[in-house]
Amino acid sequence: MKLGAIEGGGTKFVVGVGNEHGEVFDRVSFPTTSPEETMQKCIDYFKEHEVEAIGFGCFGPIDPDRNSKTYGYVTTTPKSGWAQSNVVGALTDAFPDMPIGFDTDVNGACLGEVYFGAAKGLKNAVYYTIGTGIGGGAYVEGHLLHGLLHPEMGHMKLIVREDDSYKGKCPYHGTCFEGLAAGPAIEERWGQSAKELPLDHPAWDLEAYYIGQALANIVLTLSPQKIILGGGVMHQSHLFPMISKYMNQFLNGYIQKDELQAEDYIVWPELGDNAGLCGSLALALQAKKECE
Amino acid sequence: MKLGAIEGGGTKFVVGVGNEHGEVFDRVSFPTTSPEETMQKCIDYFKEHEVEAIGFGCFGPIDPDRNSKTYGYVTTTPKSGWAQSNVVGALTDAFPDMPIGFDTDVNGACLGEVYFGAAKGLKNAVYYTIGTGIGGGAYVEGHLLHGLLHPEMGHMKLIVREDDSYKGKCPYHGTCFEGLAAGPAIEERWGQSAKELPLDHPAWDLEAYYIGQALANIVLTLSPQKIILGGGVMHQSHLFPMISKYMNQFLNGYIQKDELQAEDYIVWPELGDNAGLCGSLALALQAKKECE
Repeated sequence: MKLGAIEGGGTKFVVGVGNEHGEVFDRVSFPTTSPEETMQKCIDYFKEHEVEAIGFGCFGPIDPDRNSKTYGYVTTTPKSGWAQSNVVGALTDAFPDMPIGFDTDVNGACLGEVYFGAAKGLKNAVYYTIGTGIGGGAYVEGHLLHGLLHPEMGHMKLIVREDDSYKGKCPYHGTCFEGLAAGPAIEERWGQSAKELPLDHPAWDLEAYYIGQALANIVLTLSPQKIILGGGVMHQSHLFPMISKYMNQFLNGYIQKDELQAEDYIVWPELGDNAGLCGSLALALQAKKECE
Repeated sequence: MKLGAIEGGGTKFVVGVGNEHGEVFDRVSFPTTSPEETMQKCIDYFKEHEVEAIGFGCFGPIDPDRNSKTYGYVTTTPKSGWAQSNVVGALTDAFPDMPIGFDTDVNGACLGEVYFGAAKGLKNAVYYTIGTGIGGGAYVEGHLLHGLLHPEMGHMKLIVREDDSYKGKCPYHGTCFEGLAAGPAIEERWGQSAKELPLDHPAWDLEAYYIGQALANIVLTLSPQKIILGGGVMHQSHLFPMISKYMNQFLNGYIQKDELQAEDYIVWPELGDNAGLCGSLALALQAKKECE
């Protein structure tokens, strides 16, 4: 089965062709310009590469509700020209009968890990990306979570550690998870980017404290069977055991499930930095199945 | 259709008979003693009152996973005699062919509101009870959320307001949501029970601050279409607009959905103090449907 994938980011788009096993055969990327021009490039690509369905994981906020009037729109983004743009509409105009799966980039990545990666076969998983921002997607009882909108779990309020006087980077919430722990917060707090900080720098213990705290709240609310952490900051693999330690300290034994202490409860995406494009393949596969 | 309901609490059990519209025809309650004696009383009741399915919303933690070896157990409760007790097993021994729906009391109450009450027809809703403890259930994309265990969203970590020096009541987490805002925390902090505090007491503004903060995190993670707040503390109806104000302050306009500001986004259970028993009727109805 040939499936199309669009990984729509705020700075670049990646389009590709793969199959129902999450294998990618071809990929092209280009900068995100206007929605018209950018979507036209996607359309041109899929006119050259015939596919049976297209999955589109997109930066947000978006409207993923098929029953909504603004289904398929990027909605309230500050990105110039993109607010209220009907990106799925551009695709369906060009390919009227094509099954199209549309969701947030992080919901897509989460589904990719469920179909092809670290969460294969599970009914409940959470995917976080921790990089220039923090976003999260959730697969709950066999379904991607949308609800009123879609999760925005990077903006959960966290308690600030006593020894941290940093005021937070989020323009909306100051010291929310993203405001405390995304890449730009690390760089502003320590005067060095995450990549430059040595392994024994105190930044990492503080980073693990915030990520662990956020994950404790995630366990208490979404109760995932596995948590997948991707994104630039998580290339620091030494963070994983530290995050697990803090998550369990915050939970303090209240949830008595051995899984929470297991090494494979909090993991790097099995699809690695392909998580985004494979996630969109998963969205395509899901859309194809729903049409059958 | 005659359906049986068991509302299993730590201090009392209520059993009753109702129908698929959430109407209750008969109810009896008795104190929670040993699991053997208590479950026998439930069995005796349903030998007298014939039903087509039984729903059982139970205090927890429990194991609601039908594929687990300990499905139907109350698991790690500190309640004497109840840890690792196979409460559903007692029912299925007595009624081998009876469809039985078993879940947390709060998941049951949530399903009751979805089937019969304030969240009728919605695919995503959260139910919190705020009383002697704080517990929450969630209905997500048309399914009750279990995941690794089940939500324990009363124990989410919250930031303590600057003017609040109270150390928190939760033996596990100190100043988690329950530790800061459940009935016993209110009583210990102010030296008066919630019932005795006058409407203009500063306790209520602080209480709304904590509940609003917790609900902001819930919107960011579970993205419910409606939030239902039951339990003893929520009999204080003046709290609802104050909670909405604080929730929206914490979100600070980040989630642009008009619903969040609507009066009917955060509501009292439509089933009122019947929410528990009607929730168990809903669990019975769901179990009956699953068997068909």
